[in-house]
Amino acid sequence: MSGHKKISIVCFSGDFDKIIAAYTIATGAAATNREVTMFFTFWGLNALKKRQGHSWLGKDILSRIFNFLMGGRKSLPLSRLNFGGISPMLMTSMMKKNHVATLPELIEAADALGIRLYACEMAMQILGVTKDDLVDSVQEVVGVATFLNESEDAHIIFV
Amino acid sequence: MSGHKKISIVCFSGDFDKIIAAYTIATGAAATNREVTMFFTFWGLNALKKRQGHSWLGKDILSRIFNFLMGGRKSLPLSRLNFGGISPMLMTSMMKKNHVATLPELIEAADALGIRLYACEMAMQILGVTKDDLVDSVQEVVGVATFLNESEDAHIIFV
Amino acid sequence: MSGHKKISIVCFSGDFDKIIAAYTIATGAAATNREVTMFFTFWGLNALKKRQGHSWLGKDILSRIFNFLMGGRKSLPLSRLNFGGISPMLMTSMMKKNHVATLPELIEAADALGIRLYACEMAMQILGVTKDDLVDSVQEVVGVATFLNESEDAHIIFV
Repeated sequence: MSGHKKISIVCFSGDFDKIIAAYTIATGAAATNREVTMFFTFWGLNALKKRQGHSWLGKDILSRIFNFLMGGRKSLPLSRLNFGGISPMLMTSMMKKNHVATLPELIEAADALGIRLYACEMAMQILGVTKDDLVDSVQEVVGVATFLNESEDAHIIFV
Repeated sequence: MSGHKKISIVCFSGDFDKIIAAYTIATGAAATNREVTMFFTFWGLNALKKRQGHSWLGKDILSRIFNFLMGGRKSLPLSRLNFGGISPMLMTSMMKKNHVATLPELIEAADALGIRLYACEMAMQILGVTKDDLVDSVQEVVGVATFLNESEDAHIIFV
Repeated sequence: MSGHKKISIVCFSGDFDKIIAAYTIATGAAATNREVTMFFTFWGLNALKKRQGHSWLGKDILSRIFNFLMGGRKSLPLSRLNFGGISPMLMTSMMKKNHVATLPELIEAADALGIRLYACEMAMQILGVTKDDLVDSVQEVVGVATFLNESEDAHIIFV
């Protein structure tokens, strides 16, 4: 369509700042007519959970503890200087003050721009997370083969 | 051969979860006829050491301390919620329970699929690690020029 | 020119070891006639600050605290085993002893090889850093659109 190369972003870490970087690249790319896919795996899944804070997900006790500790979109830690979760809040206030799109705004923009969100099947199996636990904008739960096929002609960015 | 693009994975961090992600992508790609190369550098080298636990490698005292603290394949930490090394063990049990391939199984599969493993010369020099300290499946110790040439037509994934 | 693919490195984390990896790939690529661009964002900006230690940058109190805590090129932490900043010094001495280029040498080489350095506008806005706070070799302050255009025909490596 636009002649632009596709962008395929793997959200692995689930750090607040890396998720912001991922969504900034994703929305910037989609806004300039690039095809964008985001794959969420491991800690990145936390950004997709319906329950946005710490909550008990999963069937067995280990899954429940892991999921509780990992938390959701509202408890993503900063990759550095997290200070028990105060810093992501401070950074959000710095973003507002400096008129930079905050994470909820970026996520909304991604939806509006039609960015495809995929969740990683294997990580969900390990952590006992089901599709019902994830926000509705997640299009599909996929394995590594789908990821590779979708990324064939894309830049792969692993954050 | 298959028309698929090559995959070139740089294993930098040596975190348990990132190594699992790297091997999952690598084996998935190799199983679907993609050519895969894995480059291990810095902390990633820990996944290739013959001695799988904490051991004193290197010639001088600093190398020996660093290598001891870094440990080997059996002491890779989780990138988050490591809790002194308990979590990688818990995660392995969650992987077994949910019938997901564990790290040793992934590493074996990578060998069986003929995935090329390269170790980074510079990182080995810094840390005083020699080729004899690494598992036999490491094909070659290479520099950045070889990495770049091998990755020329590949997706580069840095984990 | 050389037929080589361009290299586009996103320096996000600002960890001492990742910055070394980034500059090693960058200088190796430039030395073999590849076109290289480095984008510095979030914590990566610390590697570009004129004031190389911890210093109070930014207009408001939050920016000043964040910038002070993040520090500059001389206080980049190791991504693991940092031990309050002792380890980067130890690693530098191991690099010298083993005749591996140290970070200041790599940065100098990057300048000599004409590697383009870009700083991320959004991250600078969030953190209250201005172009005057950054070293002169930074060519431009750019947004995500410029990054994507510059990286169109490049390998993107996110560290």
